[in-house]
Amino acid sequence: MDLDRELVDQMIAWRRDFHRHAEPGWTEFRTTSIIARTLEEWGWDVVVGPDVHRGATRMGVPPADVLAEARTRALAQGADPELVERMGEGWTGVVATLDPGRPGPVVAFRFDIDANDLHESSDPRHRPTAQGFSSLNEGAMHGCGHDGHAAMGLGLARVLADRRSELTGSVRIIFQPAEEGVRGAHSIVEAGWLDDVDVFIATHLMAAQGFGHVCVGMDSFLASTKFDVTFTGVGAHAGANPEKGHNALLAACAATTNMAAIAPHSAGTQRVNVGTLNAGEGRNVVPRLARMQVECRGADSRINDYVFARARQVVQGAAQMFEVSHEIVVTGRAETAPPSPELLPFVHACFAAVPGVTRVTDTGGDPGSEDATAMMNRVKERGGLATYVAIGMDAPWGHHTEDFDIDEDCLAIGVAAESQIALDAAAFLKGLRG
Amino acid sequence: MDLDRELVDQMIAWRRDFHRHAEPGWTEFRTTSIIARTLEEWGWDVVVGPDVHRGATRMGVPPADVLAEARTRALAQGADPELVERMGEGWTGVVATLDPGRPGPVVAFRFDIDANDLHESSDPRHRPTAQGFSSLNEGAMHGCGHDGHAAMGLGLARVLADRRSELTGSVRIIFQPAEEGVRGAHSIVEAGWLDDVDVFIATHLMAAQGFGHVCVGMDSFLASTKFDVTFTGVGAHAGANPEKGHNALLAACAATTNMAAIAPHSAGTQRVNVGTLNAGEGRNVVPRLARMQVECRGADSRINDYVFARARQVVQGAAQMFEVSHEIVVTGRAETAPPSPELLPFVHACFAAVPGVTRVTDTGGDPGSEDATAMMNRVKERGGLATYVAIGMDAPWGHHTEDFDIDEDCLAIGVAAESQIALDAAAFLKGLRG
Amino acid sequence: MDLDRELVDQMIAWRRDFHRHAEPGWTEFRTTSIIARTLEEWGWDVVVGPDVHRGATRMGVPPADVLAEARTRALAQGADPELVERMGEGWTGVVATLDPGRPGPVVAFRFDIDANDLHESSDPRHRPTAQGFSSLNEGAMHGCGHDGHAAMGLGLARVLADRRSELTGSVRIIFQPAEEGVRGAHSIVEAGWLDDVDVFIATHLMAAQGFGHVCVGMDSFLASTKFDVTFTGVGAHAGANPEKGHNALLAACAATTNMAAIAPHSAGTQRVNVGTLNAGEGRNVVPRLARMQVECRGADSRINDYVFARARQVVQGAAQMFEVSHEIVVTGRAETAPPSPELLPFVHACFAAVPGVTRVTDTGGDPGSEDATAMMNRVKERGGLATYVAIGMDAPWGHHTEDFDIDEDCLAIGVAAESQIALDAAAFLKGLRG
Amino acid sequence: MDLDRELVDQMIAWRRDFHRHAEPGWTEFRTTSIIARTLEEWGWDVVVGPDVHRGATRMGVPPADVLAEARTRALAQGADPELVERMGEGWTGVVATLDPGRPGPVVAFRFDIDANDLHESSDPRHRPTAQGFSSLNEGAMHGCGHDGHAAMGLGLARVLADRRSELTGSVRIIFQPAEEGVRGAHSIVEAGWLDDVDVFIATHLMAAQGFGHVCVGMDSFLASTKFDVTFTGVGAHAGANPEKGHNALLAACAATTNMAAIAPHSAGTQRVNVGTLNAGEGRNVVPRLARMQVECRGADSRINDYVFARARQVVQGAAQMFEVSHEIVVTGRAETAPPSPELLPFVHACFAAVPGVTRVTDTGGDPGSEDATAMMNRVKERGGLATYVAIGMDAPWGHHTEDFDIDEDCLAIGVAAESQIALDAAAFLKGLRG
Repeated sequence: MDLDRELVDQMIAWRRDFHRHAEPGWTEFRTTSIIARTLEEWGWDVVVGPDVHRGATRMGVPPADVLAEARTRALAQGADPELVERMGEGWTGVVATLDPGRPGPVVAFRFDIDANDLHESSDPRHRPTAQGFSSLNEGAMHGCGHDGHAAMGLGLARVLADRRSELTGSVRIIFQPAEEGVRGAHSIVEAGWLDDVDVFIATHLMAAQGFGHVCVGMDSFLASTKFDVTFTGVGAHAGANPEKGHNALLAACAATTNMAAIAPHSAGTQRVNVGTLNAGEGRNVVPRLARMQVECRGADSRINDYVFARARQVVQGAAQMFEVSHEIVVTGRAETAPPSPELLPFVHACFAAVPGVTRVTDTGGDPGSEDATAMMNRVKERGGLATYVAIGMDAPWGHHTEDFDIDEDCLAIGVAAESQIALDAAAFLKGLRG
Repeated sequence: MDLDRELVDQMIAWRRDFHRHAEPGWTEFRTTSIIARTLEEWGWDVVVGPDVHRGATRMGVPPADVLAEARTRALAQGADPELVERMGEGWTGVVATLDPGRPGPVVAFRFDIDANDLHESSDPRHRPTAQGFSSLNEGAMHGCGHDGHAAMGLGLARVLADRRSELTGSVRIIFQPAEEGVRGAHSIVEAGWLDDVDVFIATHLMAAQGFGHVCVGMDSFLASTKFDVTFTGVGAHAGANPEKGHNALLAACAATTNMAAIAPHSAGTQRVNVGTLNAGEGRNVVPRLARMQVECRGADSRINDYVFARARQVVQGAAQMFEVSHEIVVTGRAETAPPSPELLPFVHACFAAVPGVTRVTDTGGDPGSEDATAMMNRVKERGGLATYVAIGMDAPWGHHTEDFDIDEDCLAIGVAAESQIALDAAAFLKGLRG
Repeated sequence: MDLDRELVDQMIAWRRDFHRHAEPGWTEFRTTSIIARTLEEWGWDVVVGPDVHRGATRMGVPPADVLAEARTRALAQGADPELVERMGEGWTGVVATLDPGRPGPVVAFRFDIDANDLHESSDPRHRPTAQGFSSLNEGAMHGCGHDGHAAMGLGLARVLADRRSELTGSVRIIFQPAEEGVRGAHSIVEAGWLDDVDVFIATHLMAAQGFGHVCVGMDSFLASTKFDVTFTGVGAHAGANPEKGHNALLAACAATTNMAAIAPHSAGTQRVNVGTLNAGEGRNVVPRLARMQVECRGADSRINDYVFARARQVVQGAAQMFEVSHEIVVTGRAETAPPSPELLPFVHACFAAVPGVTRVTDTGGDPGSEDATAMMNRVKERGGLATYVAIGMDAPWGHHTEDFDIDEDCLAIGVAAESQIALDAAAFLKGLRG
Repeated sequence: MDLDRELVDQMIAWRRDFHRHAEPGWTEFRTTSIIARTLEEWGWDVVVGPDVHRGATRMGVPPADVLAEARTRALAQGADPELVERMGEGWTGVVATLDPGRPGPVVAFRFDIDANDLHESSDPRHRPTAQGFSSLNEGAMHGCGHDGHAAMGLGLARVLADRRSELTGSVRIIFQPAEEGVRGAHSIVEAGWLDDVDVFIATHLMAAQGFGHVCVGMDSFLASTKFDVTFTGVGAHAGANPEKGHNALLAACAATTNMAAIAPHSAGTQRVNVGTLNAGEGRNVVPRLARMQVECRGADSRINDYVFARARQVVQGAAQMFEVSHEIVVTGRAETAPPSPELLPFVHACFAAVPGVTRVTDTGGDPGSEDATAMMNRVKERGGLATYVAIGMDAPWGHHTEDFDIDEDCLAIGVAAESQIALDAAAFLKGLRG
């Protein structure tokens, strides 16, 4: 399927608009607002606000003042006040369904929409800078391509709205917030949006993979738990009364070092990283407070669980050592999820048929983490099929760097292949299941 | 000697004005400006600007942007533009001399004038809040009484200007910046301002000591070195390429723990405190940068030197362990300086004669650190006599707390006794040395 | 090929004799002596003593007093005095060659002969105990099956001596000392004994693999470096003069913890283990000396080299931290060595043809380390083919446990298959290389 | 009082005999036996065996096999079999009382009798070596002068037995075992032997003090707790299953480092020393067991208690970190005990009167630890007077070194002064208390 040029240009315009108004996880008020209003116009059933998520299971939501500031900014940048009101304390994201009424399978697509906590490059060689669409929002930047993902989701919705009469079954597009930090998928899963899905496709643009190369079965994700650790002790004058202090920094140092020393699991890859540590009130005061941002990973969830359990013990022991209290808050979680092997030939064929695609592979990837895996696992548990597609780019920069930019030619590839998947899924499944 | 009521009220007014416009170390642009202009009016020879210090020896000067902001604020709050210009990159403080022309000894007094990095209490029971003179400058507060010291210095200058004709020899008053962090005295010493001093008195208001009690020979100060440590490594994605990282945080943790484990010196008290540690760029990045604020102390300079030397080794070893670079910058230094025993009876007598003083002791103190010790040692090395006087208050709060306030009745005690010391020093020295 | 019963019984007798007189690495004076004298009788060319090794490259040789005691014991237990004299400072092991004079390939076999540092079980259910052949040598036990390997080597030599007239090319059997701790292979390789080898087979009995199962291409070995670390500081009375101490134990603790915290390499499995730490002279003395036995491993030599390089940095940094000196002595080293794929079908067929063999696999193994890999790599570098064969047993106990015992029925399997390999190698290579 | 030459020679003979047959703490079977039999002959009431101690309160008793070997050795070296039998599981030491029947005060003396765990020097310049009385018992040596103390106790007993008729009140001599490691005094105190004492004198020869100098009021002892820590985890193969290990060595390293980092108490000197650490079973095994010998000290018991409480927390936290179990066993304890000021002039005068004594001081000492302080405190609690006397020597070597030797001329000084104290105590107390 070829997309008409007008839609391609429109996707590039959406993508640049999202890029210019980058919104990090759980603050995608404007992005959500634009997506929702657009889809409504095109006849999709749109869910926005608390119904997108199962409340208690949200992870890593920023504090109220950050959310309030983000709402104000979103309104100033053109978000719909009624929708912003509905999203309130960060209930961002959209679940949109198109059901033409002909019984058949549910096909679901996941596009993530959040930006990174990054300062965008002001180098004139950086295209967003050169062409005037770099982020207006200080400290927020689309450094992972989710602006492109959101635009693809809109493009796909547009094509399917136009070809509604050809659909058998229904299509659901999930515009997921807060993928960075693997925070946003779980509460959507818990709200049940994946329970009835027969075919599930998550999509990502991939910088290192090369333009024209699509991997339709990313299988190298690591399970991961993201968590914050706080040690709270007792301050004291370091010269006059050191013995009265309960030193939160020494506890944090013991925890940091000994988490790094957790024994490797023989079953496969594992990781622990204390990414940030901030502690202390002044040079001559025994540190009362220490805060750490930590993550662990494993080649599978069992290994990740082992590492996280050991990390908890280390933190508890460090607190005990220095007679300080501790708190561990899980802020994100990702699983491992191998793609459904039966699904791959179909998805492979749909991508291979798209002009510009020169190579399609069935396995691949680097050891990062993704919370779309939680969606994939739910679909598979309920008997559905799921996979994760990476659309390659020629970009020389890495994801999550200040110079990151996407290859906008990729957008059409994703929409062309995935609209075909939506249209042909019923037939594919019929062939598969007899 | 009794002070007239008008001067006492004036000192209280000065003190409250300084309190309201609190300026931390090396940013005392307005405070310096007011002191200098006032002393000039009264006929003192006043030195302001780079000549106060020997340049290369200044320690712990804030970065240029902090100084620029402070200059702007000082000008807005009434500082003299010409003097602010002269003080430029933080050349704050005043050295003022009154020389009536009758040959005799040089008597010098040290008053420190800087505020603390503190948020002042907004509790209505806090007098500065209740009476409307709490700090206008966010994050800056006179929490150690240096506002009172500055007022005493002015009061003493006023009395001696009035009684100029009674002076034999000359008097020097040093209004020292940046005593907090023991940063400001050294470059004044290095500039030579103590080299010709025969009698030297440093003065401090002391919260825990009780009103009416004056200690004329504080001898419990600890030698101390304040230093900043920076470890710089190499960041890397903690999931994909952990082996490419050179982990500055793990180096900082090894340094922190093992500095705390430096063996105690058998000759007396020692301390090490890593007061703050801030490290890392993000949860999933191997930390590239770690910054620490550290101090060590010793019952005498030899012990302090031992601890600092050991701390340097620990930092170097930690850097070596994790293949990161390190930088150690000394930001402050204090010595130990026992008072001159021959001086104590004279100072004792001068304070004992002041109304309100009910108890005078010759030794005392808590294990804090003071850079006036550098001045005392220079005076003593050159054959002069020196001591450190603490004027007690009934204050229930500790120094360096947000509730700190001084007992303004102390101001008169200090000025009364110390103007007598200035007037009688020539006779005292003649008696002593024959 | 079936072995005659007499030879099988003889192998069992040899094996039990070696078991009863267990000799750990570099002290195999009696074992070497018996093997050498026996092979000489059968007409093999036998090399014993310093010519077996390239001197300077031997690793992990015990101290002179241990060697002297072992020589005395070996003599008391029947070793040949002339050979013991020739082996002197631990030049143990035998290289034996059978060259019937018909040009052809060199086929080499490696059997290791050293015992473990273990106390043998005295449980009556332990067969060596029950049948009276448990180790006479306190602290030495064949807990890994090398007694069986040595017996297989003799059995193979016997068969080939008998069938000498059928051989094309020559056969070399290497009876390697000191495999435990991966110490003994390197100096044999350096002496050149592998340089002309066309086909190389290393053999091991494998407890967990099940009787009848032979793996002819063990490919899971980890590269490894074994090393000892010594920190030497300065002792001091811990109460009276702690500052005079340079604490070797604190250095060792910093090294131990931070070696465990070496960042994982993204390319594959790695390990670090500080297996033993012994430090200190008395409760009230600052520890002057600390000794550690350490090993690191990697899925390949590049990873292992990364870990070892990082470990060296950690040790150097720890020494620097505590102002102690350090020494690192490498005591063993193993590489990774995938089997030659062209060789596997031939070896597979030879084992499959042996009665009792029910299953032959081409890949397998657990993540241990082996220094036969050094021999394999040398053979492959020079254009030869090499593999590592594991002959399975039903044993419920693990290797290196006090209850370990071998299944003596395995001996015939190994000799039958490997004598066939020796006899058919020339034809096989001709077929392969045309 | 002058001692006759025969007694002096006899004391030297005793001392050399004890030196030759050195017995460490709780194994003083022969030493006890000889002292007890000798005193019985002279008419003292002698208690030997379990009645000397209150059983459950003994600390640091060696294991049964060490005691059994020591008993065998003692019997071979001439100990009385009946007494050795009575001393059984290490109930060593003697309490001897001489009560002539004239009502009066109880005067008690403490002499400790145990040797050190040391290898004696074989240097021919070492007098015990040169004159043939160096220790026959490998690993045991009188390196602190307790051989001399035991001889002084016997000399004192001899003099008082001879002058029994001059005594008013009674005299008790306590020959204390196991002073090294501050283990032996507590169970004697708990058995009540100090409860009725009016005047108590502990005595020590002091190498660094100079011959002729006696300090009659040693007041610099540190309170101390000696304790053993054992961590028990789970071993595992470090290559194959590192995650199955619970690493006792990593726990011990965390404990060691963080005990060294316990914050200094502002009230005075403190110490922590992990003197020995022994851990691990082999290079390639995750360490299952780690044993540490630790001591802490404080300028007073409150400080020592603070350090010990913090050390317990650190050990518990380290165990928690690595999921290993831990055990803490207190093996010794010493308190601080200032001498009774009223007693000093009397003791001062008695020593000053002895020929050879050239200087007597009332305070002094180095920061070591002594369990006689427990006796002193009990005496003082019950209303008695107590002090600790150090008799100086010119020895160039330190206590607890392999070259240590005593100046035998000191023995007469101690006995002369202390027998006078015993004889005059009644009169002194009468004068003091009226």
